[in-house]
Amino acid sequence: MPKLRVHNFAVSLDGFAAGPDQGPDAPLGLGGGRLHDWVFRTRYGRTMIGEPGGDAGPDDDILAAGDHNIGATIMGRNMFGPVRGDWPDDSWTGWWGDTPPYHHDTFVMTHYARPALPMKGGTTFHFVCDTPEAVLARAYEAAQGQDVRLGGGAATIRQFLAAGLIDDLHLAIVPTLLGSGERLFDNLGSLPGYRVTDMLSTKSVTHVWLTKH
Amino acid sequence: MPKLRVHNFAVSLDGFAAGPDQGPDAPLGLGGGRLHDWVFRTRYGRTMIGEPGGDAGPDDDILAAGDHNIGATIMGRNMFGPVRGDWPDDSWTGWWGDTPPYHHDTFVMTHYARPALPMKGGTTFHFVCDTPEAVLARAYEAAQGQDVRLGGGAATIRQFLAAGLIDDLHLAIVPTLLGSGERLFDNLGSLPGYRVTDMLSTKSVTHVWLTKH
Ligand SMILES: NC(=O)c1ccc[n+]([C@@H]2O[C@H](COP(=O)([O-])OP(=O)(O)OC[C@H]3O[C@@H](n4cnc5c(N)ncnc54)[C@H](OP(=O)(O)O)[C@@H]3O)[C@@H](O)[C@H]2O)c1
Ligand SMILES: NC(=O)c1ccc[n+]([C@@H]2O[C@H](COP(=O)([O-])OP(=O)(O)OC[C@H]3O[C@@H](n4cnc5c(N)ncnc54)[C@H](OP(=O)(O)O)[C@@H]3O)[C@@H](O)[C@H]2O)c1
Repeated sequence: MPKLRVHNFAVSLDGFAAGPDQGPDAPLGLGGGRLHDWVFRTRYGRTMIGEPGGDAGPDDDILAAGDHNIGATIMGRNMFGPVRGDWPDDSWTGWWGDTPPYHHDTFVMTHYARPALPMKGGTTFHFVCDTPEAVLARAYEAAQGQDVRLGGGAATIRQFLAAGLIDDLHLAIVPTLLGSGERLFDNLGSLPGYRVTDMLSTKSVTHVWLTKH
Repeated sequence: MPKLRVHNFAVSLDGFAAGPDQGPDAPLGLGGGRLHDWVFRTRYGRTMIGEPGGDAGPDDDILAAGDHNIGATIMGRNMFGPVRGDWPDDSWTGWWGDTPPYHHDTFVMTHYARPALPMKGGTTFHFVCDTPEAVLARAYEAAQGQDVRLGGGAATIRQFLAAGLIDDLHLAIVPTLLGSGERLFDNLGSLPGYRVTDMLSTKSVTHVWLTKH
């Protein structure tokens, strides 16, 4: 059975997945860039941005594992970009340049309709307004037997968690305090269906794996 | 210079230091008892409750380190007990029986006055209503050159953190989700004065150490 997986989702020690006031120059909000420093210290992370170097080791392996056997991606509209409300035009095409690192159908959840956006390298952004269940069904179909990845952000993960749709959730707890921003675990109740299966601290972050049981 | 230290303060993966609805049978709130399971798996933790057995290892050493060179303790009124508002009488003397594990002057912050309460084994509970700075000054005096420990709970630690009074803060992140309760990091802003100096995951918990710089 294909799964819905979250990988390498970074949260600060005080529980934020992004700082406040996201904008074109602050994709992760103010101060939130620190959440991804560990990514760009790894070899895999540097390759993602076309840079040489980076460290091998557990962070590198764990980061790479997030891309294994993924056939489609789902994300919230604020992970896709800083535009809110109606799309003024079709000029915003994501943070990732003309060749996004997805290479498959990518479903952007939004209340604001927009035509599908094919990019170089096989990524097509589909703008969808539906329940998590319905979007997930479309993504499973697009993934053709592979797993589906839920990229983020916090609000979208909360929504899928609350609906019990996430099978595996891997967090990277980053040893920094953001103070405010988008909290991951908020108003979720006790999520009795999830248990922590493993934890690992590296020099940079603490990895935590949760599984639905 | 003596320090104000927090040790072994347990928080759930979703950031709670206690579950909701604390009561006489639920000192840590509903579900919150899980936050201290790791304590009672260690040798030091079992000794604290007069039980044999328990494991040696890093959790045991780290737990024990919290008691080194401590000459006085500060805690919030809800850590002392479940009584709220006026004290109906002096019958509530803490969760710890007639010989509490402090063995020194222990300052309980509360807006409700009550005479000092000497217990067996050297602990005296002093009920104090003052600013964190003033209570800390009294505790430093009582500690006679040793450090002061801030025991908790969440609201009291937040107050001392916001005032920049805590020198060392050691948290134990427990791999469980409580869903609601007393959040440690809440409305604190970015606490720019604190940085994480170390992290260590054991089988049971992830230890995180923060220091004021
Ligand atoms: N820490 C990490 O590893 C990580 C990973 C990914 C992203 N992030 C960051 O997280 C932040 C974004 O997170 P976020 O919590 O602000 O937002 P988000 O989850 O990315 O997006 C939420 C938005 O998606 C739309 N949406 C969600 N569910 C919907 C549904 N069922 N139907 C229709 N529309 C729906 C709504 O937008 P509209 O109503 O406006 O359409 C909603 O406001 C960004 O800063 C991003 O960079 C961090
Ligand atoms: N996770 C852990 O390791 C750990 C450790 C310790 C405690 N705990 C748990 O945490 C919970 C208690 O935490 P909490 O956040 O609810 O409360 P708390 O911090 O223990 O106590 C807060 C109360 O202390 C009094 N207070 C605080 N500052 C004061 C001041 N400056 N002047 C006068 N009074 C002051 C006020 O009570 P009044 O106004 O009523 O007097 C306030 O409501 C308990 O469930 C406890 O078992 C957990």
